[in-house]
Amino acid sequence: MTKGRLYHETGMGSTSPRIARLTMPARAYTDAAWFADEMERVFARMWLATGRAAELDRPGAFIRRDVAGASVLIVRASDGSIRAFHNVCRHRGTRLCIETHGTFQGSIQCPYHAWTYGLDGRLMAAPQMDEVDGFDRSEYPLHSVSCETWDGHIFINLASPSASGPPSLAGQLADLPARFAPWRMQDLRLAHRIEYDIATNWKLVVQNYNECLHCPIIHPLLNRMHHYLAADNVPTTGTYCGGAMGFKEGVETLSNDGKRRRDYLPGLGARERALVNYFAIYPNLLLTLHPDYMMTITIWPQDCGRTKLIAEWHFHPDEMAKPGFVFQDAVDFWDRTNREDWAISEQSYLGISSRGYAPGPYSERERQLWDFDQFVLGRLKEPVSPKPRGGEGG
Amino acid sequence: MTKGRLYHETGMGSTSPRIARLTMPARAYTDAAWFADEMERVFARMWLATGRAAELDRPGAFIRRDVAGASVLIVRASDGSIRAFHNVCRHRGTRLCIETHGTFQGSIQCPYHAWTYGLDGRLMAAPQMDEVDGFDRSEYPLHSVSCETWDGHIFINLASPSASGPPSLAGQLADLPARFAPWRMQDLRLAHRIEYDIATNWKLVVQNYNECLHCPIIHPLLNRMHHYLAADNVPTTGTYCGGAMGFKEGVETLSNDGKRRRDYLPGLGARERALVNYFAIYPNLLLTLHPDYMMTITIWPQDCGRTKLIAEWHFHPDEMAKPGFVFQDAVDFWDRTNREDWAISEQSYLGISSRGYAPGPYSERERQLWDFDQFVLGRLKEPVSPKPRGGEGG
Amino acid sequence: MTKGRLYHETGMGSTSPRIARLTMPARAYTDAAWFADEMERVFARMWLATGRAAELDRPGAFIRRDVAGASVLIVRASDGSIRAFHNVCRHRGTRLCIETHGTFQGSIQCPYHAWTYGLDGRLMAAPQMDEVDGFDRSEYPLHSVSCETWDGHIFINLASPSASGPPSLAGQLADLPARFAPWRMQDLRLAHRIEYDIATNWKLVVQNYNECLHCPIIHPLLNRMHHYLAADNVPTTGTYCGGAMGFKEGVETLSNDGKRRRDYLPGLGARERALVNYFAIYPNLLLTLHPDYMMTITIWPQDCGRTKLIAEWHFHPDEMAKPGFVFQDAVDFWDRTNREDWAISEQSYLGISSRGYAPGPYSERERQLWDFDQFVLGRLKEPVSPKPRGGEGG
Repeated sequence: MTKGRLYHETGMGSTSPRIARLTMPARAYTDAAWFADEMERVFARMWLATGRAAELDRPGAFIRRDVAGASVLIVRASDGSIRAFHNVCRHRGTRLCIETHGTFQGSIQCPYHAWTYGLDGRLMAAPQMDEVDGFDRSEYPLHSVSCETWDGHIFINLASPSASGPPSLAGQLADLPARFAPWRMQDLRLAHRIEYDIATNWKLVVQNYNECLHCPIIHPLLNRMHHYLAADNVPTTGTYCGGAMGFKEGVETLSNDGKRRRDYLPGLGARERALVNYFAIYPNLLLTLHPDYMMTITIWPQDCGRTKLIAEWHFHPDEMAKPGFVFQDAVDFWDRTNREDWAISEQSYLGISSRGYAPGPYSERERQLWDFDQFVLGRLKEPVSPKPRGGEGG
Repeated sequence: MTKGRLYHETGMGSTSPRIARLTMPARAYTDAAWFADEMERVFARMWLATGRAAELDRPGAFIRRDVAGASVLIVRASDGSIRAFHNVCRHRGTRLCIETHGTFQGSIQCPYHAWTYGLDGRLMAAPQMDEVDGFDRSEYPLHSVSCETWDGHIFINLASPSASGPPSLAGQLADLPARFAPWRMQDLRLAHRIEYDIATNWKLVVQNYNECLHCPIIHPLLNRMHHYLAADNVPTTGTYCGGAMGFKEGVETLSNDGKRRRDYLPGLGARERALVNYFAIYPNLLLTLHPDYMMTITIWPQDCGRTKLIAEWHFHPDEMAKPGFVFQDAVDFWDRTNREDWAISEQSYLGISSRGYAPGPYSERERQLWDFDQFVLGRLKEPVSPKPRGGEGG
Repeated sequence: MTKGRLYHETGMGSTSPRIARLTMPARAYTDAAWFADEMERVFARMWLATGRAAELDRPGAFIRRDVAGASVLIVRASDGSIRAFHNVCRHRGTRLCIETHGTFQGSIQCPYHAWTYGLDGRLMAAPQMDEVDGFDRSEYPLHSVSCETWDGHIFINLASPSASGPPSLAGQLADLPARFAPWRMQDLRLAHRIEYDIATNWKLVVQNYNECLHCPIIHPLLNRMHHYLAADNVPTTGTYCGGAMGFKEGVETLSNDGKRRRDYLPGLGARERALVNYFAIYPNLLLTLHPDYMMTITIWPQDCGRTKLIAEWHFHPDEMAKPGFVFQDAVDFWDRTNREDWAISEQSYLGISSRGYAPGPYSERERQLWDFDQFVLGRLKEPVSPKPRGGEGG
């Protein structure tokens, strides 16, 4: 695949030329070179949601995330800031840490030859290196990764810091901070996490999230909570799409029975209490805001046909402190609904991967899917700059 | 690999130039591009045996077969005809059906958004699509696959129907219908099926089937039934090779003890009662006709070194209706013999895949293997026409 | 990858230009084409250690080794010589033997059609071939592989015998025979074997073996036996690197407690009794000589990130004949230490494979690693001659 060129349709081409919006060609889902391109131009250049600042609750606390060929440590530094580093020793390249989360005791030490880095990434000790001509410890900090926080969500950006740094997270988020301010997301705390490993392309997960036409067929339980045609979508921007859905009569939140077992989140008005917000924040965060809790799903593509997902349920600490606090109703509801979505997304991948697939027509209710497709295609058409190279220290 | 060119020998070339017929080069068995070429030029253009019409015993009954990147549903339509379709929804490409066989209740509905097709493939319902500008249901039937039947065997052809359609099944079969008329195969009914998944190239399965020189070494039981040099082969044609083998003294059919526990098939004369016919009908049917039953093996290549096989045992319904009907003797005999063949075919693949392989000399008794090789090479040398594209509805 | 060109650095390039010796670029470890090149230019052209002559203790005794796409049988012939052959029948390419070791009864017979070879590789019987025009049995011996022995170690060379044969084993070994004469290795006998299958690149195994800077961190037990900075290395040559390490006070050999439970090997003087020799004999033998036993590890690369290792412990037969002979202390010590090395080598591979890797600086104590890198790079820069082809008989 020549990078940067437009992708043309192949396979069974039999769609009416009168249809304006069609699904993407099969190779957008099945071609390893296309996938590599997406990793380079989407995942390695945009801000990626990686987890919650609250989880890094003391100096040395860290989470590890692997994406686009990188392994990244996100660490609470001694000064309280959050820093991100490539999980690779500057000596002989050893993976520093194989755990997914934990706490470093004051420093990060390579398990092979004990090169030791501060929580800010500086190289503090490098046994036997002082005798090496021209070696200067200050030139071998961990390669840093850009890291910023929005309302409790940590984002990283793998793009190489240039003189000006990568585009800011604020620029990528646009009006989202204002839009979701009432939920006071930074106050919320993690109660439960489920990881999924599914056999589908990551884009089919986003597309599945962005329409509810399938709800009556796939989701008998969810369909009791919302009217599937009731989505009130906002205009799609270059970096997200989404909207809100109101509840059916008698439903107060998404739980197995529609009952709400926790107080409303404190910042919400009457309007926000009556609906669920569903936003796909490109490229890897599915943010679902309920009247009394938040579910986040982050998306970690592994290859064309395999995707890892981390789903987390977050609640208000005041509720969590109450003796009768429960959350299993919310977890059960969504775990069931998520698995319904993953199963059909896997079946979708099977069909798209097969010889009989041809792009098909989107309905008006699937406009956000086409918008998302255009976002992906737009990123792939960008001119390629030279491969990123770290400067001093990353 | 440049498509369409002649393949030249590589590797250890040390065979005497005086030998006229040699085995194929290693890459015919190990090169992924060669395999892809075979899928395109052999399996996607020829008629493939897929199963038995009798299995589709009511409207909606279907079997699914996956081959050459396609997933195909073969369905008994309401008018009694047998139809084949790509197992892919015209909307967003979802695999319609993940079962290998079953019965559709009057229509085929996509499990994602409920697009609904008739058993003839016509799109009957497409929720929310009527508001789409230019959408016309009649333009979105299931992509059809050519489907014909010979004497109870269903064949499909993945080649795109052109004005004239693909070459006819009758053309591919040549004189086989006349040759096998006495067995009245369409009357026979399935009694047992075994699926095998083996680590070898599909061509090594065909080659193994086409000679009995290995019988004294590999098949102690089979070798008690036939004399291994007694094959009476017919001249190979462009689409099949095969022949018959008579029984040794006291043997009446192929079963664990050579005894026959069922009446002769009604159409057979004295000559047909005294032998077994072994025909490899290119590219994917191994048809073995005994005095009292039929075994079919269909071949489903997965990649260079992996092949699925579906073996079925078919008997006359009059016999099956008898109180004392047994068939395990035939199944046991062949399951054992088949597994002996699969094991040596796997070992053969291991050797051919290794650095020490060079084409070797065929004996006169392996003439049919060389014929089969020429058939494959002949298909690969054909000029490539543009990639098939579906027309209206297919 | 264009073969024969110099490999240039990519990725995060941020190393000080003042550092003279850096680790290799990531693609040396992760690029399938680079690996294929190594197999062709290193493993298929150099002498490879395959096992011990003593294991082939009677005519017909054999071991099988698979490397660089070849499967090779190493056989004790009837005349007492050791011969090596490609494990591939000259008829239709079947793998002759699937066992890893055993004894042929006077001849090697293909299990498919019973072509039968002498222990010297000559084709003795080929059923049904006499009627083939131009067929001459003498033209179809097993393809032979060059095979030589050094002090009880069997080596093979996959390079095609030319008029002059491949470069001699003696040339590759240089001064090693003289250097290790006191250990009288050919007298030693195998007591135990452990096979490992690990997720790392083969070169990381060699590099790990060639430095002890990691010993205090990775090997608490080994570190009680040697001082980790006490290695006395010999100048690296084009075909090996290594050196000796003396024992700490009170240690007499490498066992779980440093105690020696066997007499010194008979040829050793006071100097050799006081140390362990560690030699990486390129490309695939790690030879570790103790005062009272020998450990060999042979390296069998499977792909970029997977390597099989065969570790063997060899002792003097006089000791093995004693009633109280024990060896488990030596096996336990090294099995534990080996597994520590394999784990960190796997972790190293993970880091080098990730986006954050850049070549890092070697210390002076890692000079042998850089030497080894130069050896590999030097082999890859050699001009490519045409693909090897077997001559008469292989």
